[in-house]
Amino acid sequence: MIFPHISIIGSGNVAYHLTRRISEIYSDINITVYSRSGKNNKLFSQISGQVHISHEDIFHQPGLYIVAVKDNAITSVSSQIVHPDATVCHTSGSVNQDALSGHAYTKYGVLYPLQTFSIERDVNWSDIPFLINGNISETTNDLLEFARSLSGVAIVADDSQRKSTHIAAVFANNFTNHMMALAEEWLDMNELEFSILRPLILETINKLNTLSPKNAQTGPAIRHDDPVINMHLKELEKYPAHLKVYRAITASIKEMYLNQTDKIWEINS
Amino acid sequence: MIFPHISIIGSGNVAYHLTRRISEIYSDINITVYSRSGKNNKLFSQISGQVHISHEDIFHQPGLYIVAVKDNAITSVSSQIVHPDATVCHTSGSVNQDALSGHAYTKYGVLYPLQTFSIERDVNWSDIPFLINGNISETTNDLLEFARSLSGVAIVADDSQRKSTHIAAVFANNFTNHMMALAEEWLDMNELEFSILRPLILETINKLNTLSPKNAQTGPAIRHDDPVINMHLKELEKYPAHLKVYRAITASIKEMYLNQTDKIWEINS
Repeated sequence: MIFPHISIIGSGNVAYHLTRRISEIYSDINITVYSRSGKNNKLFSQISGQVHISHEDIFHQPGLYIVAVKDNAITSVSSQIVHPDATVCHTSGSVNQDALSGHAYTKYGVLYPLQTFSIERDVNWSDIPFLINGNISETTNDLLEFARSLSGVAIVADDSQRKSTHIAAVFANNFTNHMMALAEEWLDMNELEFSILRPLILETINKLNTLSPKNAQTGPAIRHDDPVINMHLKELEKYPAHLKVYRAITASIKEMYLNQTDKIWEINS
Repeated sequence: MIFPHISIIGSGNVAYHLTRRISEIYSDINITVYSRSGKNNKLFSQISGQVHISHEDIFHQPGLYIVAVKDNAITSVSSQIVHPDATVCHTSGSVNQDALSGHAYTKYGVLYPLQTFSIERDVNWSDIPFLINGNISETTNDLLEFARSLSGVAIVADDSQRKSTHIAAVFANNFTNHMMALAEEWLDMNELEFSILRPLILETINKLNTLSPKNAQTGPAIRHDDPVINMHLKELEKYPAHLKVYRAITASIKEMYLNQTDKIWEINS
């Protein structure tokens, strides 16, 4: 192991799941966890392995620091790290690497796990891609090696590539989930069960193993089927949240397939 | 088997996959397929079993008719069925059952499979829910029994319940798929691979086995994280299709969680 010690700063989902994974892989390494609020200390203390919950700040340690705090706290937290040989990384999809620059240490970078984390969900680390960068190639290589020990996939990505990937993740995860939440809310209001949609949702995703999403599209919008669309808009008219999203996404689908041949509409009709 | 003969009218995805499933389950029943255009006759002729492709109309047959044509053709096609003992059903999520009324036959109803079908994808019928209705209870029961022989799940749903379910399916399948298509297009434009999102997409769906979508939401919008949202809007500003959807869904997520306690934002941060 390249790092003699690992310090994890933060109390959220990413800090929690990273701590669990690191303690699982590195049972012989001392791991210290610190968060200013200490609000999840109880939860962290249940992690098995060599995990020490610190009640005082840990900014004088050597080794690797993983700063897994809110985006707007990254600079102020990292500025307090005083050990010159420390390697400091953050885990954010949105924050530039240089948010870590200009402090006592000289090696820093990014360790961004491309996944959605919730405290209550176990994580399958074996296929989570890490997007890695470092201010010097030594740091990049150290973080790559470390990330690969935690997961099967780690690639180098600069700030711009990471931000673009993060935006794609917002569409593919956050927005997708919101479509499900609206579907659930709508079924609730109509006294129908969300569970009836499960096979459909599963197939929606499984399809993407053999078709690109652009080619997998079905439904009234891609068929430009205005009678069905208008009937849906009428059903939704008293539900502004659903109505606005229905209008916006239907318009977007119609636009995406505006210049396609009839073939796609036929195939998916 | 309650029906001595099965006629399937249509040439699309639903007609094709239903014909395959019926010929698999009922190897001893004559199945006739007819479409006015005949455009997929070659494909249908490759289905194994007792499937006869008719080149002339089949409106004089007894038994079950499955009218799996475009919504706006259902009435005109069914009006041509002349056998008085026929049972006629359509497969649409949107069309009222009574679109089949007033013709030579007296028994009619709906056999709506809640799934997304593509010619090139095999279908796992065992868990596809059928939404069933009939104009008289005898028809409802016959269609229920028939649907249950094709799939594990069949429930009775009236026009209104079926339409509401169809709208939910548009959100959960069509709109979700479009989020993926936009993510793919965005990654393409940025010379990044869609495949990097696969573990995230899989987890997005797997999460729903243990969390409701409303509780599974993560990302900048639910956190009301305007610095990240504004950075994303700036990145997207030259891509109107992405920008419009980003704005609409972000606003919708913010609105859904407007009156939630801080707790959810903390958990998902």
